[in-house]
Amino acid sequence: MTAEANLKKKLDELGLAMPAASEPKGVYRPIIVVGNMAYTAGHLPIDAEGKMVTGRVGDDLDLDAGYRAAQLAGLGILATLQKALGDLGRVRRLVKLLGLVNSTLDFTQHPAVINGASELLAEVFGPDAGVAARSAFGAGSLPLGAAVEIEAIFEVE
Amino acid sequence: MTAEANLKKKLDELGLAMPAASEPKGVYRPIIVVGNMAYTAGHLPIDAEGKMVTGRVGDDLDLDAGYRAAQLAGLGILATLQKALGDLGRVRRLVKLLGLVNSTLDFTQHPAVINGASELLAEVFGPDAGVAARSAFGAGSLPLGAAVEIEAIFEVE
Amino acid sequence: MTAEANLKKKLDELGLAMPAASEPKGVYRPIIVVGNMAYTAGHLPIDAEGKMVTGRVGDDLDLDAGYRAAQLAGLGILATLQKALGDLGRVRRLVKLLGLVNSTLDFTQHPAVINGASELLAEVFGPDAGVAARSAFGAGSLPLGAAVEIEAIFEVE
Repeated sequence: MTAEANLKKKLDELGLAMPAASEPKGVYRPIIVVGNMAYTAGHLPIDAEGKMVTGRVGDDLDLDAGYRAAQLAGLGILATLQKALGDLGRVRRLVKLLGLVNSTLDFTQHPAVINGASELLAEVFGPDAGVAARSAFGAGSLPLGAAVEIEAIFEVE
Repeated sequence: MTAEANLKKKLDELGLAMPAASEPKGVYRPIIVVGNMAYTAGHLPIDAEGKMVTGRVGDDLDLDAGYRAAQLAGLGILATLQKALGDLGRVRRLVKLLGLVNSTLDFTQHPAVINGASELLAEVFGPDAGVAARSAFGAGSLPLGAAVEIEAIFEVE
Repeated sequence: MTAEANLKKKLDELGLAMPAASEPKGVYRPIIVVGNMAYTAGHLPIDAEGKMVTGRVGDDLDLDAGYRAAQLAGLGILATLQKALGDLGRVRRLVKLLGLVNSTLDFTQHPAVINGASELLAEVFGPDAGVAARSAFGAGSLPLGAAVEIEAIFEVE
């Protein structure tokens, strides 16, 4: 099954609509492709209605809400890729993921939060090509009070 | 107009002198070039007199002071590039920016702070080649109490 | 002397055994190699017995304990490289290091902590090839309460 079909199936399972590709707000681009590497900006958890998930995991949000926020950030990365590449089939593999959690200072389960994005990307691109070298950590604060911020590097063709 | 001329014009506008390229302090290099990609170290906001902007944005420093700190960090990245490449004209494009703000835990305007560097780089390299995929966030703390720390990836020739 | 021999010598000096290469726990890989670039996941400070150094530098841990934690994270990166490449001699150079310290909010000596990894890598790969462009900073919190988390990019052959 293709990446596009995997994404459609996953969205159906989750009962989610695809968010719009984020428009450049301010002096950055959602994605820059250099040679066969695509670098995305940090993506915030914004749903198909344009609503962002805000709050601190471990306080305002529990682990499950954090996981779903990371899933939304992952969908945002996919929307950005679709718009830039035309077709997710041009993705050779996910290379690197940096996952920031807006968490309390004593929070320790950042990997379980960022799995919301990682599991989505693994389902879309497959259990090898869709799994990245990853770092996950707790930020002191995030733009607009977002619950998570996730950036990715992909190999593309 | 060339990147070098754009930089000179911008420095004149701002009434700023170019900071010195940072010397390797400790076990790192300010920049590593591999093939046609240049990776910079995290740059701190140090002015032409060698004075660093310290403090927490949202408490010790307001948004405008944070913006100017990011501008200084951006100038430091340009000084490092000039020294490593000889000429900013060898920069094909800015690819990625990671901007860390030493901010209060409830701060939410990290993008507006890091714009201090992004707007500078866009003026020097132009509105396409000078604009990066970017992530901005609040760190818990920064080296030497610096107000911001910014690292960049450039495509070079 | 080769990188493997340098590593053995350094381990003997430190009286340390090599930690096991970390197994993928969850939806990520310890390392992804694309072309001649190897991207590692964030590595936590885990010793040869599998015990992780936890705690906050500047409170639970002093600078020296933080330095030794960074050394362990660096050894973990080397173990991951050995497993992926077969031989550290395939490393052309260290390119980039991102070093996160689980520190108090007023901590300022992150570079001195991350030197624990940087000095190890410089001894193993040499004073040019083993020294990276680097960013070090304080995270709000780290996975499992780890004292440090370090990720690296290497050029390999």
